[in-house]
Amino acid sequence: MPAGIFTVSTSKTMQLSDITLQVQKAVAASTIMDGVCHVYNPHTTAGLTINEGADPDVQTDILAALQKIVPQLQYRHQEGNSPAHVMASLVGSSITVFIENGRLQLGTWQKIFFCEFDGPRSRKVLWRIA
Amino acid sequence: MPAGIFTVSTSKTMQLSDITLQVQKAVAASTIMDGVCHVYNPHTTAGLTINEGADPDVQTDILAALQKIVPQLQYRHQEGNSPAHVMASLVGSSITVFIENGRLQLGTWQKIFFCEFDGPRSRKVLWRIA
Amino acid sequence: MPAGIFTVSTSKTMQLSDITLQVQKAVAASTIMDGVCHVYNPHTTAGLTINEGADPDVQTDILAALQKIVPQLQYRHQEGNSPAHVMASLVGSSITVFIENGRLQLGTWQKIFFCEFDGPRSRKVLWRIA
Repeated sequence: MPAGIFTVSTSKTMQLSDITLQVQKAVAASTIMDGVCHVYNPHTTAGLTINEGADPDVQTDILAALQKIVPQLQYRHQEGNSPAHVMASLVGSSITVFIENGRLQLGTWQKIFFCEFDGPRSRKVLWRIA
Repeated sequence: MPAGIFTVSTSKTMQLSDITLQVQKAVAASTIMDGVCHVYNPHTTAGLTINEGADPDVQTDILAALQKIVPQLQYRHQEGNSPAHVMASLVGSSITVFIENGRLQLGTWQKIFFCEFDGPRSRKVLWRIA
Repeated sequence: MPAGIFTVSTSKTMQLSDITLQVQKAVAASTIMDGVCHVYNPHTTAGLTINEGADPDVQTDILAALQKIVPQLQYRHQEGNSPAHVMASLVGSSITVFIENGRLQLGTWQKIFFCEFDGPRSRKVLWRIA
């Protein structure tokens, strides 16, 4: 089963980074023409999502909404990044995309985003193709 | 790897549409008795979820809650559907269900729902069985 | 395709239960060294998530945040557990983890959690390895 890993360097506390190209390169390298690509985030204050990539304002709006959605409580976790952990569970730690004719079968407006919720950091992204 | 696509026509701005039957038909057509069925939504203002199908009030309640959860902000995206994009990332773009004896291995109360967040529209749903 | 089921007994209304060990045991029993492990929750008022396992306060904080995030509305569903259904759709019904050298390829701080949102109950968790 083809598998691999790549790095994402984030530059802000919260950021959506388009990783579609890296995932597409992994698919191309695998030479699998027809299958399922799983992408996995091994971090607990980050996530993966698929959403619109055409207008960067959508990314800004998603982050603004998440900051409002996750409340500012008297959290117990002493590191002070509990909202980032909550966002990680809301967004999820993996995404699945189909492969058709050796290419990611994304919708017209869809891109794959690494979601940084507690950056900036150097992050890893794992992929595996079935 | 068996794969296919079907259409969902939504009639409201926000709506949960039970697509369990279409997915079960895809599984039956594949003749795979034992495996994993991945269902994928290629749209950025829609999603897929698994939840209770017995009482339609649960669907109404989920939509009412999502409308409260996603705040009304001064969003930048000019199309005015940023809340729908946020809901798409909260709910997720794919679901995975197991197949046992040629049937979806859903829990007693579970149904698979296409989540329309910016309708009404004609939408596509992709499936692939491993 | 190796597959199985195990039980989780929850003791509170809302609780995150670490099921990493049970999933790792399933992976070991499958003797699959390299692949993808899918874990599935067949209940409509529960979910599965991957998050930090080192500090139990993170689990407490995630539950506290979810209780704030999901509003107290005049829900229609007469069972009174609509917030639990909403949480189930926010967190999701399945998780996917990679297997490398016969072990779950989790990040340093990651654990797999069964999310009880309407307990205490005896719950089932399904797994399948591809």
